Amino acid sequence: MGRVTVREKVLRIRGAATSSRVDTLVVEEPLEIRLNGEPLTVTMRTPGNDFDLAAGFLVSEGVITRAADIAAIRYCAGATDDGSNTYNVLDVSLAPGVRVPEMSLERNFYTTSSCGLCGKASLEAVRTVARFSVAEDPVRFGVATLAALPDRLREAQRVFDRTGGLHAAGLFTPSGELLAVREDVGRHNAVDKLIGWAVREDRLPLRGTGLLVSGRASFELAQKALMAGLPMLAAVSAPSSLAVDLAADSGLALVGFLRGPSMNVYAGRHRIDLETASTTPMAAPG
Amino acid sequence: MGRVTVREKVLRIRGAATSSRVDTLVVEEPLEIRLNGEPLTVTMRTPGNDFDLAAGFLVSEGVITRAADIAAIRYCAGATDDGSNTYNVLDVSLAPGVRVPEMSLERNFYTTSSCGLCGKASLEAVRTVARFSVAEDPVRFGVATLAALPDRLREAQRVFDRTGGLHAAGLFTPSGELLAVREDVGRHNAVDKLIGWAVREDRLPLRGTGLLVSGRASFELAQKALMAGLPMLAAVSAPSSLAVDLAADSGLALVGFLRGPSMNVYAGRHRIDLETASTTPMAAPG
Repeated sequence: MGRVTVREKVLRIRGAATSSRVDTLVVEEPLEIRLNGEPLTVTMRTPGNDFDLAAGFLVSEGVITRAADIAAIRYCAGATDDGSNTYNVLDVSLAPGVRVPEMSLERNFYTTSSCGLCGKASLEAVRTVARFSVAEDPVRFGVATLAALPDRLREAQRVFDRTGGLHAAGLFTPSGELLAVREDVGRHNAVDKLIGWAVREDRLPLRGTGLLVSGRASFELAQKALMAGLPMLAAVSAPSSLAVDLAADSGLALVGFLRGPSMNVYAGRHRIDLETASTTPMAAPG
Repeated sequence: MGRVTVREKVLRIRGAATSSRVDTLVVEEPLEIRLNGEPLTVTMRTPGNDFDLAAGFLVSEGVITRAADIAAIRYCAGATDDGSNTYNVLDVSLAPGVRVPEMSLERNFYTTSSCGLCGKASLEAVRTVARFSVAEDPVRFGVATLAALPDRLREAQRVFDRTGGLHAAGLFTPSGELLAVREDVGRHNAVDKLIGWAVREDRLPLRGTGLLVSGRASFELAQKALMAGLPMLAAVSAPSSLAVDLAADSGLALVGFLRGPSMNVYAGRHRIDLETASTTPMAAPG
């Protein structure tokens, strides 16, 4: 638990030169999330910030929106034969009165759309489940601010440079401050950890802020942004068609291929301020 | 259906220069897989090779190992109100006598291990479900052959260069021939499509061949390789700790950071031939 990396012996080949050396690997372990004692899901994740991961997952699924929705989160001891704690099973107790909705957007596909199953049904499912609306959020982000973000995210990543195996997600302000950064071997988990941190800090909806991810922008990441009330999703790599459709449909700005001063705006260009330069000094992320 | 890319208008920003242009995006759409008429899973995928995707998913879950295990695969018409076919819902009918096992490795975690839930339990779950053993496969791969693979995969990828949004998986021989290449917005889907092609061609177990993936090597990708009887997994990026553990545990060779003549061997170094040069001419993939 909490082990983010391990060191293992590898055979290193560089052309004709080979050598045995010790390499740093990112840790991947299963985490079972239980809800009120009932098994909910198992995800392969990098240990650390597990309570954030569970809380963020519940935001993404539409179960919680406030810190007060959670009565307690605890690791389950005694899940093993010898009664020891693996720190790979945790239980979230909801506060009295918090309703557990029909879980999973997948199931909601069938009840919300006349198209059976299609991209449009996926967008409708998010509309049905989302508790916040981002369309009326007036926030705008300057190009120079956006341009500086990928380098800041990399600087804030403590593990990536050593293993090359971690995805990162960061929450940023219009002045370019990184409020928090979370990492995981799974891209969805990194975002859930970040959003879970925010809901446990009672910061939802995340109006006036943006989500930066180190990889691609898929439908599911856009969905997670919307479930947390985020008006901006910026990705270092490519977006998918359905992520762009969802963003355009809901007032979420979507920036892709963000690499320094070069970027593409796929949706919500009214949120992009082409004039404003970045003026905020570097801040240490939480 | 079958649309791999779409074109959408984007705002392109390159420093102070902005322009409106049309960009190519990779398509992402939901696919529901039904098994004998019962809903099994929904995955967000890039349309195309859907039958391969469904077949490969069933190999990964331990349901099928032969072409004859499948009686039929068909798109479900009439899933919509107007009875039209979205090509996003398909049904796999198993041949008579093919048993549907308890699905999902996740559930098998609980019945196979004394550790409750931990990395070791994940390895045991794969051992329990896997139908093939790769340990006794004598195949070896030359370093020069491996070195040439990433470029060949990129050449074979028809879409990546246009969108930057697709993961690729390729099946290769010890002489460096790419037998097949599949692409998807999801890394697991690209591998399932490839393995599904192989099972529908009745090529399982895939002894004497290797799997190349364009991204990272996670536990789940190593698991998919083993379920198909593959003795080699090569990845362009980093492996996770649990992927390495599973590979070492089962006789699967695992090569990471494969970038031309530079690579790291994390497991199964007895399968790496440091002397043999690549001698096979380039072949067109299937």
